[in-house]
Amino acid sequence: MSDLREDGFLGGRLTILQPVHGYRSGADAVMLAAACPAKPGDSVLELGCGAGVASLCLGWRVPLLHLSGLEQQANYANLALRNARANGIGLHVVTGDLSRMPSELRQESYDHVIANPPYFRAGTEASDAGRSAARQEVTPLEVWIDAGLRRLRPRGGLTVIQRADRLETLLTALHGRAGAIAILPIAARAGHDAGRIILTARKESRTPLRLLAPFIMHDASRHLRDGEDFSAAASAVLREGKAILWDDAKDS
Amino acid sequence: MSDLREDGFLGGRLTILQPVHGYRSGADAVMLAAACPAKPGDSVLELGCGAGVASLCLGWRVPLLHLSGLEQQANYANLALRNARANGIGLHVVTGDLSRMPSELRQESYDHVIANPPYFRAGTEASDAGRSAARQEVTPLEVWIDAGLRRLRPRGGLTVIQRADRLETLLTALHGRAGAIAILPIAARAGHDAGRIILTARKESRTPLRLLAPFIMHDASRHLRDGEDFSAAASAVLREGKAILWDDAKDS
Repeated sequence: MSDLREDGFLGGRLTILQPVHGYRSGADAVMLAAACPAKPGDSVLELGCGAGVASLCLGWRVPLLHLSGLEQQANYANLALRNARANGIGLHVVTGDLSRMPSELRQESYDHVIANPPYFRAGTEASDAGRSAARQEVTPLEVWIDAGLRRLRPRGGLTVIQRADRLETLLTALHGRAGAIAILPIAARAGHDAGRIILTARKESRTPLRLLAPFIMHDASRHLRDGEDFSAAASAVLREGKAILWDDAKDS
Repeated sequence: MSDLREDGFLGGRLTILQPVHGYRSGADAVMLAAACPAKPGDSVLELGCGAGVASLCLGWRVPLLHLSGLEQQANYANLALRNARANGIGLHVVTGDLSRMPSELRQESYDHVIANPPYFRAGTEASDAGRSAARQEVTPLEVWIDAGLRRLRPRGGLTVIQRADRLETLLTALHGRAGAIAILPIAARAGHDAGRIILTARKESRTPLRLLAPFIMHDASRHLRDGEDFSAAASAVLREGKAILWDDAKDS
């Protein structure tokens, strides 16, 4: 991993080294961090932390967290550690496979688990190995959810960002094991299908599911290049590091 | 069922006798009918047809359907038949329990199955018996979905309206048996959680799931009494009998 590049996140508040040619985290990792309702002092485990973007965004927003990241690829794990140090945020990084949870992590339980599992089924993309491992679903999505639930304390919170079309798999994997499920559809523009969802759940809760109003990334009224016409809500998250608030349900 | 009342649907295009004190269908039955993508000549089975509102709204919109309704309560089944005749729409009504599917229906397979299963778990409401049976979930929601899937031809379409918080149960029941799932969140106003969802699925399909932009019932800008400030989309469905169109996905 010789070719690295510095990418700014949260409007330049974080500087993250990422490989030029490998997998690079983007807006989804930032959205994931913004959606995790961790409070100061909480422990958080990120499954598949890559270069650390989501964990470090979360650590930037919420003080005094105990952040741990599990990453299968040693070069990304090293990069996450390096990025954490460079940004002055504490992050404990473990190299290992979530489907064979390292015993060091297996002995712990966490207040929160966050994950941005790969979006593409194995074999659908051919590119470099590091990028493939981060983007392709070698470990089935159900296994990510199972591993996350196992690492949570009772009533601990799972936060996941994923393609909207995997909602069925996510809910089936959570069935009977978690409640207080909240689904935030993320749509590129108002009136469009959700491309992504952020899903939160609480282990062993029996609180009913909520399907929230969509989070709209881009204003429909303006037609600039993508990335230059973020909605006010998206801009607050991506450029100012604001949280996505899971308000109490409005009467519906 | 001595006390009956005539209710107008679709802006008075249908006149439906319903019990004054029992369960009365409303906007949800009309929305269900609007969301069923039946084409002229198709066969449609409604599980739990009550006084026939959903089936008759569908029959009003789409010509030449072969409509059948299954209803457990004989007095509602009789009313559905009476309402069908009064509105000049053909509806075959069978009295029976969907969890012990009458053999007459078990021998058939349908292009579409529609259902508006009860919204409240058994024991959560006490009122008159007819209303309770229609509103309370005596037969588990999973059994409704299973019965519906069994009655569909391969690639036949299931259309269900239900509380949004039952999404997990619906998707778990469909898992591995249906695809092309499309979820339309229905929210009272823009920015609110979905209160209901309409879900469509195709038996044995493997087409990915879609999570659509919400259908908004009331305009946020106006604050008249509910029912007097329908959005243009809701008004088109409820007062003019228009279909809810499941467009192809917009890029997201």
